[in-house]
Amino acid sequence: MNNEEFLGKLNEKLALIFTDKAKVESAMKYSLLLPGKRLRPLFIKTVCEDLGGNLEFVWIPAIAVELFHTGSLVHDDLPQIDDSPLRRGKPSCHIVYGNDFAILAGDGLMLKAFQTLSQAHETTKSMLFESFSKATFDVLIGEALDVEYTGTKRTLPEIIGMYEKKTGALFGFCFAAGAIVSGKYHLVERLERIGRVFGIWFQIIDDLKDALLSEEEAGKTTGRDKALGKVTVLDCLGIQETKKFADNLFEGLQKIFERLGLNKTKSLARNVYEMVKL
Amino acid sequence: MNNEEFLGKLNEKLALIFTDKAKVESAMKYSLLLPGKRLRPLFIKTVCEDLGGNLEFVWIPAIAVELFHTGSLVHDDLPQIDDSPLRRGKPSCHIVYGNDFAILAGDGLMLKAFQTLSQAHETTKSMLFESFSKATFDVLIGEALDVEYTGTKRTLPEIIGMYEKKTGALFGFCFAAGAIVSGKYHLVERLERIGRVFGIWFQIIDDLKDALLSEEEAGKTTGRDKALGKVTVLDCLGIQETKKFADNLFEGLQKIFERLGLNKTKSLARNVYEMVKL
Repeated sequence: MNNEEFLGKLNEKLALIFTDKAKVESAMKYSLLLPGKRLRPLFIKTVCEDLGGNLEFVWIPAIAVELFHTGSLVHDDLPQIDDSPLRRGKPSCHIVYGNDFAILAGDGLMLKAFQTLSQAHETTKSMLFESFSKATFDVLIGEALDVEYTGTKRTLPEIIGMYEKKTGALFGFCFAAGAIVSGKYHLVERLERIGRVFGIWFQIIDDLKDALLSEEEAGKTTGRDKALGKVTVLDCLGIQETKKFADNLFEGLQKIFERLGLNKTKSLARNVYEMVKL
Repeated sequence: MNNEEFLGKLNEKLALIFTDKAKVESAMKYSLLLPGKRLRPLFIKTVCEDLGGNLEFVWIPAIAVELFHTGSLVHDDLPQIDDSPLRRGKPSCHIVYGNDFAILAGDGLMLKAFQTLSQAHETTKSMLFESFSKATFDVLIGEALDVEYTGTKRTLPEIIGMYEKKTGALFGFCFAAGAIVSGKYHLVERLERIGRVFGIWFQIIDDLKDALLSEEEAGKTTGRDKALGKVTVLDCLGIQETKKFADNLFEGLQKIFERLGLNKTKSLARNVYEMVKL
């Protein structure tokens, strides 16, 4: 199955999760079905393929990770956190459904993620559960550090440590999940670490986009980091050095993918790189 | 182990979960260590004892349920939801840590609940995970219906259905968990349903407390339901009929506990009944 076919099927499955029976379900559905890139599910899929696993086992962790990711974005966008009225090119959840339902919808999306994962195949469920629950708690701690650091001066290691949790942890789960569903248990820890580094790179690219792109180009509110006093790698390194830092990280990851024979994963990462023209 | 000893040990374990390394951890710790009755953990314990199970397996679901419950209270108390400045006799999380950190702390408590549960014994993990993730999602839907119903006119079945999710689902998990950790798998579904009914009774008592007690007596903001236009059973039945309804429900439950030989559970429920002098 190629990535487009996978995304088509994934979007069909996501569209079936929520009804419109309750207002909170409509809010969850609205946010989940905004046109996202579904990058995290895609990485579970490519890692699984690269390791010779059965794609049938990918759906459940793929849906779970997209549900959780959407829930965390809904809370991030709230006026009390990042105050972003725009997400994936459309009005954010709280703009459409109000702050109360956005808080509840964010909770619901996260909880539905776990309920989905609880339906995983018995051979993979326990490991997926451990990895996912650790990753999602780390995401939360990373987001909270991001808020706590706002308006303060931080060192590069502190900022990278925050990125590793905020954005790295969930990619770490995706890479690990690809190994778990393929039964390649000896690779789980290593791929989790590689996924976290990919996430750090991805977060740095996101910071560069926020600083350099227009809202139309980015599909979300930009220029917010500076306006909100957010601490980013750019504060420490400036734009040119940050770009170099990101490129070095990316080339290092490409070599690791090659060494491990993760060819589809390498090619997906390259696509992500080329999608962002900075 | 009697209930007091259990609560002592449980509180010791809860006190060790969070450090003060990050502001969000302090916020989670603050809310978790407010003097709660820890009723939900207690019911897992009594059901397990009544079914002849090993109490060693109770700790993990007990801690998970208290973490989740605290997280859901932190979000409930937010100005955007129930706007309650008082919880368990002390200032609510958002009063002490701000709305941003209360949103994040609520998320974190819920996620830590799952991470805790992911460490359950392999023989019980999968069933606990399924039951817990279903229950917690139901709690969220119930809370959201509560908000959606506010200021509208609803029928008794609609209100009871909302209570079953909002408050019943988590008690349902507790009763089911007592059976799961005791290896009494044939009783899981039945106890889950009984727990849900207990939760409905408990919610009605909570409504009566909100309507009849002072803040000092209740240890939390009271009179809120009316002020907020919340839909409660009292709207349909009035105070006297609601009391009768609750008493009938309670006596029915006592008989079921007796028939199933759940003596410690019956006695705990009786204590809860007597704690609330209405």
